[in-house]
Amino acid sequence: MTPTITAFEASPDRGRGMARDMRVRWALEEVGQPYDVRLVSFAEMKQPAHLAVQPFGQIPSYEEGDLAIFETGAIVLRIAETHKGLLPENEAGRARAISWIFAALNTVEPPLVDIQFATLFERDKPWAAERLAMIQERARKPLGFLSKRLGEAEWLDGEFSAGDLMMAGVLFRSKPSGLIDEHKNLAAYVARAEARPAFRRAFADQLEVFKAAEAKGLSSAPPR
Amino acid sequence: MTPTITAFEASPDRGRGMARDMRVRWALEEVGQPYDVRLVSFAEMKQPAHLAVQPFGQIPSYEEGDLAIFETGAIVLRIAETHKGLLPENEAGRARAISWIFAALNTVEPPLVDIQFATLFERDKPWAAERLAMIQERARKPLGFLSKRLGEAEWLDGEFSAGDLMMAGVLFRSKPSGLIDEHKNLAAYVARAEARPAFRRAFADQLEVFKAAEAKGLSSAPPR
Repeated sequence: MTPTITAFEASPDRGRGMARDMRVRWALEEVGQPYDVRLVSFAEMKQPAHLAVQPFGQIPSYEEGDLAIFETGAIVLRIAETHKGLLPENEAGRARAISWIFAALNTVEPPLVDIQFATLFERDKPWAAERLAMIQERARKPLGFLSKRLGEAEWLDGEFSAGDLMMAGVLFRSKPSGLIDEHKNLAAYVARAEARPAFRRAFADQLEVFKAAEAKGLSSAPPR
Repeated sequence: MTPTITAFEASPDRGRGMARDMRVRWALEEVGQPYDVRLVSFAEMKQPAHLAVQPFGQIPSYEEGDLAIFETGAIVLRIAETHKGLLPENEAGRARAISWIFAALNTVEPPLVDIQFATLFERDKPWAAERLAMIQERARKPLGFLSKRLGEAEWLDGEFSAGDLMMAGVLFRSKPSGLIDEHKNLAAYVARAEARPAFRRAFADQLEVFKAAEAKGLSSAPPR
């Protein structure tokens, strides 16, 4: 059965691959699973029909027959569990790959998202620079441990897995912070991820959606 | 095989159930799985032996034979997958429960943790109040959606699941923010979780560890 995901009708990132559907598209491309996309406007995201599937009024969501789930992590895990190629066959390796998915989302990403918020919403404050320096220090800690663990390896734990997809997806999204480039091996890790054909197809597809929205004159500015 | 988890030798929260091993203990108590605890000092957490299991130098970790994993979310999911009682038997319900685990950790928790950081590290800044108000507004959004979705239900999606354990665990930890009490149904949801015998046993056990550390004169102040 072909799954359906949701994505922004007009992405606020203007098609730069920052919207969360990017990771889901990438996972689906990695396993060769075709999918449909239902585009939603900012207004539709807060309506009951969408909230029934995505209780926080966000994208993406994932529907497959009578199964309807939300949260990028849960969706990528579901895709990895039901297709070959994104989780090791052995139990211990599979459990470690799942640990990396959670590490990406709960340890590495939160301070990086906080930097994005600070950059967007605090930049005009007189205390912006002082606060940015504080949050950068907080974000550097997990990145330092991650860099040390990765070392010169190609991926985090043997073959490319859903754990790498999520971790590289998180780092890719935070390249504008400048913090990823402080570790040569992390920058190279993200570059390897971006070079994967599945990543490139997913990126091209989400960019296509944005270009179509722009051609139609749809606003990509989310309501505050 | 009896699993072994790691926990703070002397918890910085002084045994108030805020350390992340609490959620793992709680899950193990829910499924009736006995476990061993290896206590680690702040210095040991940054040593190679611990980093081999927990790459970010944190607690908890979970070892079971040759399986060694990290991240609370991954550990709770592993416990739920290998025991009865924390995930629905049907596939769609199971996938939704996993969505709630990720929602707790990647949508609800990050802004609440940010409030904890602001309260700890920004309180002496002249801009502390202005910034706290901003981050409170950010944290209120997912809480509002969560409250609306929960409504008058006992748990998020039918029977108590690992999704409730993680969500209630996140909310419990953020009670000091005052934001949970802004929604009567969320406060009652956390109270129901705290009343569960498994929660109470887990809480008592982690408190016992802290009291023993205090009796030995161990410092519970983490190095900055």
